[in-house]
Amino acid sequence: MVDVARAVERMESFLAEQLADAGAEGYVVGVSGGLDSAVATTLAARAVGPESVTGLVMPGRPNSEANMADARALCRDLGVAFEDVSIQPIVDATEAQLPFEPATPTLGNVRARTRMVLEYAVANEHDQLVLGAGNRSERLLGYVTKYGDDAVDVQPMKDLYKSDVPQVARHVGVDERFVEKTPTAALWEGQTDESELGAEYETIDTVLRRVVDADQSPAQVARATGIDREIVDRLVDRWQSSAHKRTQPPGPSLRE
Amino acid sequence: MVDVARAVERMESFLAEQLADAGAEGYVVGVSGGLDSAVATTLAARAVGPESVTGLVMPGRPNSEANMADARALCRDLGVAFEDVSIQPIVDATEAQLPFEPATPTLGNVRARTRMVLEYAVANEHDQLVLGAGNRSERLLGYVTKYGDDAVDVQPMKDLYKSDVPQVARHVGVDERFVEKTPTAALWEGQTDESELGAEYETIDTVLRRVVDADQSPAQVARATGIDREIVDRLVDRWQSSAHKRTQPPGPSLRE
Repeated sequence: MVDVARAVERMESFLAEQLADAGAEGYVVGVSGGLDSAVATTLAARAVGPESVTGLVMPGRPNSEANMADARALCRDLGVAFEDVSIQPIVDATEAQLPFEPATPTLGNVRARTRMVLEYAVANEHDQLVLGAGNRSERLLGYVTKYGDDAVDVQPMKDLYKSDVPQVARHVGVDERFVEKTPTAALWEGQTDESELGAEYETIDTVLRRVVDADQSPAQVARATGIDREIVDRLVDRWQSSAHKRTQPPGPSLRE
Repeated sequence: MVDVARAVERMESFLAEQLADAGAEGYVVGVSGGLDSAVATTLAARAVGPESVTGLVMPGRPNSEANMADARALCRDLGVAFEDVSIQPIVDATEAQLPFEPATPTLGNVRARTRMVLEYAVANEHDQLVLGAGNRSERLLGYVTKYGDDAVDVQPMKDLYKSDVPQVARHVGVDERFVEKTPTAALWEGQTDESELGAEYETIDTVLRRVVDADQSPAQVARATGIDREIVDRLVDRWQSSAHKRTQPPGPSLRE
């Protein structure tokens, strides 16, 4: 469990410092109606002032109108200006150009990457930084679209486990209805984080804290926590096989 | 100056190893008709066999039909299958969605990122890795579109200075007409690398080798080489201010 007040202070100082160091005009953030982007947007508004934050609300299937309405309401409550930019015509054009009928995950990744393209177009135009809403749990499991939702300029919540996000949300006054939402990347109908990952975030974070942060073996973790060994192994495998999402693209050394 | 035969051997071993390690079906590479992607495609075809490489030819303004024809001819000569996928309808749809008329560089970046989206859609669908054609000179200067042309799975030429690319090209049999092309990102009409960077690659690489690889000061470099101090300073500034393109997005530490 993280010290919430200290974590909030660090994330906010980080956001203020990064903006000053870059000499940029503000942050642009994709606001999905989910909890993580609500927290990221709130942290940024507190850190640099709501007038220096632009929300980008990007509807597109399978996003519900209720989530988009929540995203807009969040921006209004914070005093953050927002733009509504639908990804659907762009995703449709992409699908039409592809020489095959894309499978559901392929198209889901197109959606996440199209949002990135729009965030950067806005950021480029207005000299802003792209603010990420990624957390440590999804990052360690590689549960992100490579060069999609993970493709940002700064990641204030990079070190925050997902199961600690609700306390942070409450501390900065994010409305409880965001806290109560079921975590989902919303890249296709019916997708939820916990069904895809095969475990609840409390379980996931218990395993990751022990394996990644405390260097325990899967056998030790299963023994100490009572979590099924198969679940532990599957999470460890996800962590290890997603290492390529946490580094720059590799190349061979040619100069020594 | 690099040892060309050894560099080629290392890049090809790297490409074979990365594919085996990932357990993927092959490489997909955006083929622009320019030199760097011609070299990357040729290296991959030699390393893993042309049947395990897919070329993606992605026309769109301001690309000339001549360059696209060269890209297709390169694939045919190598025995590499290719797909023709125009980015234009997708870029047009993006432009239509944006709440402003994008400036030329903004739209140029949309083009580079749209190509990335298509490369990954093909790679996702066919279980391939995305092959990059980035070189060390553009990487050190940040002369890339963040999450665009730099957004790949492997970068075989990551450590190769641009002024060494022609020898590598000749060594692996890339046609001389690719070597003779004027380097350009082709993101807008009339763009060339050397006019944007304000120096020729021979000069750029002389400066980078001394400043980055040999840790010399700008004053030392100007004195030793006779290169104008202002040019040296501008290149060093580009190198330093583009550091964010060579690392993962930063976040504050919250766990100690």
